[in-house]
Amino acid sequence: MKRVNIGIIGLGTVGCGVVKTLKAFPEINIVQIAVRNKNKKRNLDSLDESIITDNAYDVVNNPEIDIIVEVAGGVEPTFDLLKTALKSDKHIVTANKELLAKHGDELFQLANDRNLIILYEAAIAGGIPIIMPLKMTLCANKISRIEGILNGTTNYILTKMKENNESYDDVLKEAQELGYAETDPTNDVMGYDAAYKICTLAKIAFNSQIDINKIYTEGITKITDEDISFANELGYTIKLVAQASVNEKSEADIRVHPVLVSNDNVLAKISNATNAVKLCGTPVGEVCFIGPGAGEMPTASSVVGDILILASEIKNANNSKSLSLMMKTGNKNVTQVDISNTINEYYILIFAKNNKGVIGTIGKICGDNNISIQTVMQRGIENDNMAKIVVITSKSQELDVKNAICDLKNNESICEIKSLIRVLN
Amino acid sequence: MKRVNIGIIGLGTVGCGVVKTLKAFPEINIVQIAVRNKNKKRNLDSLDESIITDNAYDVVNNPEIDIIVEVAGGVEPTFDLLKTALKSDKHIVTANKELLAKHGDELFQLANDRNLIILYEAAIAGGIPIIMPLKMTLCANKISRIEGILNGTTNYILTKMKENNESYDDVLKEAQELGYAETDPTNDVMGYDAAYKICTLAKIAFNSQIDINKIYTEGITKITDEDISFANELGYTIKLVAQASVNEKSEADIRVHPVLVSNDNVLAKISNATNAVKLCGTPVGEVCFIGPGAGEMPTASSVVGDILILASEIKNANNSKSLSLMMKTGNKNVTQVDISNTINEYYILIFAKNNKGVIGTIGKICGDNNISIQTVMQRGIENDNMAKIVVITSKSQELDVKNAICDLKNNESICEIKSLIRVLN
Repeated sequence: MKRVNIGIIGLGTVGCGVVKTLKAFPEINIVQIAVRNKNKKRNLDSLDESIITDNAYDVVNNPEIDIIVEVAGGVEPTFDLLKTALKSDKHIVTANKELLAKHGDELFQLANDRNLIILYEAAIAGGIPIIMPLKMTLCANKISRIEGILNGTTNYILTKMKENNESYDDVLKEAQELGYAETDPTNDVMGYDAAYKICTLAKIAFNSQIDINKIYTEGITKITDEDISFANELGYTIKLVAQASVNEKSEADIRVHPVLVSNDNVLAKISNATNAVKLCGTPVGEVCFIGPGAGEMPTASSVVGDILILASEIKNANNSKSLSLMMKTGNKNVTQVDISNTINEYYILIFAKNNKGVIGTIGKICGDNNISIQTVMQRGIENDNMAKIVVITSKSQELDVKNAICDLKNNESICEIKSLIRVLN
Repeated sequence: MKRVNIGIIGLGTVGCGVVKTLKAFPEINIVQIAVRNKNKKRNLDSLDESIITDNAYDVVNNPEIDIIVEVAGGVEPTFDLLKTALKSDKHIVTANKELLAKHGDELFQLANDRNLIILYEAAIAGGIPIIMPLKMTLCANKISRIEGILNGTTNYILTKMKENNESYDDVLKEAQELGYAETDPTNDVMGYDAAYKICTLAKIAFNSQIDINKIYTEGITKITDEDISFANELGYTIKLVAQASVNEKSEADIRVHPVLVSNDNVLAKISNATNAVKLCGTPVGEVCFIGPGAGEMPTASSVVGDILILASEIKNANNSKSLSLMMKTGNKNVTQVDISNTINEYYILIFAKNNKGVIGTIGKICGDNNISIQTVMQRGIENDNMAKIVVITSKSQELDVKNAICDLKNNESICEIKSLIRVLN
């Protein structure tokens, strides 16, 4: 049996999962592993210490190695390490969504020029097979829309807020204690992680270059348990959904923000750290993939899957690679539309003076801004003469809604615009 | 651009969908199409009549053709046609689940011997990408369990029976009128179609030979709207689920029959003609794929996806094929266990004389046969002194349940055992 030699960069949670999983595959030979700190205690028995190095450049330059497995994360020095690896003719398996979103095009170009393959199943939706199905099985389709719950941490937080009627801050603290959220949760709760992932998904699905900086990104930090409870009364669950759609004019609407998801949509039922990706395409229609979006072993499943696929390519006697596995360099041009030009339904929570005419006032301001109202629900608050009014609008232009919010704020009957959350189309 | 030449066998619903979809891919050249009846009117504009033949052997022997696309169905003459195609060195794309279940091993062996590839994404779960994810992305996993709603017709019937409180016969008639069920629905409603599909899925997942004749198969023809309604009262939905699991002793339990699915299981929510496949594996955990299980365009999505994957392999300058795409010939041996040796929970609907002690009698007979009862629900019937008693057992050996049913039938307090349906574990 010809063995395939790999080098691993990073030995954190995912790296350890990869090493454990590879024990079942003796045809894969781990030649070297780069770590940041050689003295860190790791939950791995029988690891040969002599293959550990704290110089990652030794690994990417090692002439014995066929495949570099990058599970370190971050942009620097990882970007430079992977460029170096490609220049020394190594295939790459990576789980690095941030790097792919920010510098994927450059890496794929470099790989294509040298007849090398970069696989990255683990970078998007963890253990869920989504990249390979999209690139291969669904390749006859024109994908028009993607909707995904792509971040386990925020989905866990929103699920617990709903289940236990708890505040964002309380649930975040619990999630941090349980290891579901990091000490610095910014990347997850601000939506950045989901934005990296939808960026790469859209790139493949629309076969186009996508600018991560033009993806509208809004996190879940302002969502309250009150919003969740009002949404529930109206038949919705609040989720952080990453969306990408493209129309016939090649206008791509790509964004990450909290949305009210109708409870009869399968995405509303995706709970805790589970991820889900829905794809709409022609001719297939709608397909949905659900599974674990993160974690040591699910992520290792995707990383090792990619390693084995690459290994079987390398074992092929000659040097010609499967074209299906190569990244098509995005040759279509889409225009990324600004969120202010999109059309959505909106949930607005308004704190108003408990006057008889206040709903009329709200209705008039909305109407003056071209906004029709679908639902109004009033909840009086005892003792302080203030009402909480929930409005769900019909489909409206984002810009009109922003204007209406200004007008509402300036009206003397309105105390506060407490929340503004879009509804998933 | 080097074009890839294909020949199509069959121009029914799926065949027409394939021809329509291929219009977007000028690199694929349809050289010849075999039909049964040349004079049949087809819903295809601008089809070059000169490429149509009613002799399928002309197509599989045509030296210009690289790939044979078989969308005709049935076992004969299709089996012989595909063997002939392989012997004349053609790759194959097929949607034929029956042929794969009955003669797949022989076809794959022949293909492997000649360095040819057979792809069959459309044969299982229509438009859902499941074969390629299982063979490639999830290849690091040991799959222990598959649960699938793999037949759209029966799922449509069961959905409508529940939604409209209608009988099986009435809904079947409607489904036939709407084209969701065939004039002779045997293949679907008896569970055969789902059995073919789970046979091939299990073969790939367990990397083993599976005997279609040893798959316990039971259809939905005896399910009543009353069963559906009682199940619903208890928090379950009745579905036709194809299951395959394997334990550490390599005992494989593969079967198709109606089950009560707990309403918090995602499979309970899969409605109408939608299909779903749940996979449990190590290290990934649980992943679930949902989408259209049949129909002209969803099936064409999978067939054309396979054609494009194969085409990109063929365009590779040399003749060495991607090993990942080859069928691993099942080299493990599993023993297929008999349904009588399995352990399940059971829903039993008993019509009994409305005596005070009848529940005690049922409990005693169950207990004497090693069966514990989880739930008993009694519904008296006015005017005729008969009670309907629904029993849900705890986990029990199938053989014990069969014995208990005999004992119940012989008891004078029991009028009839109306239904016996397993509960999904």
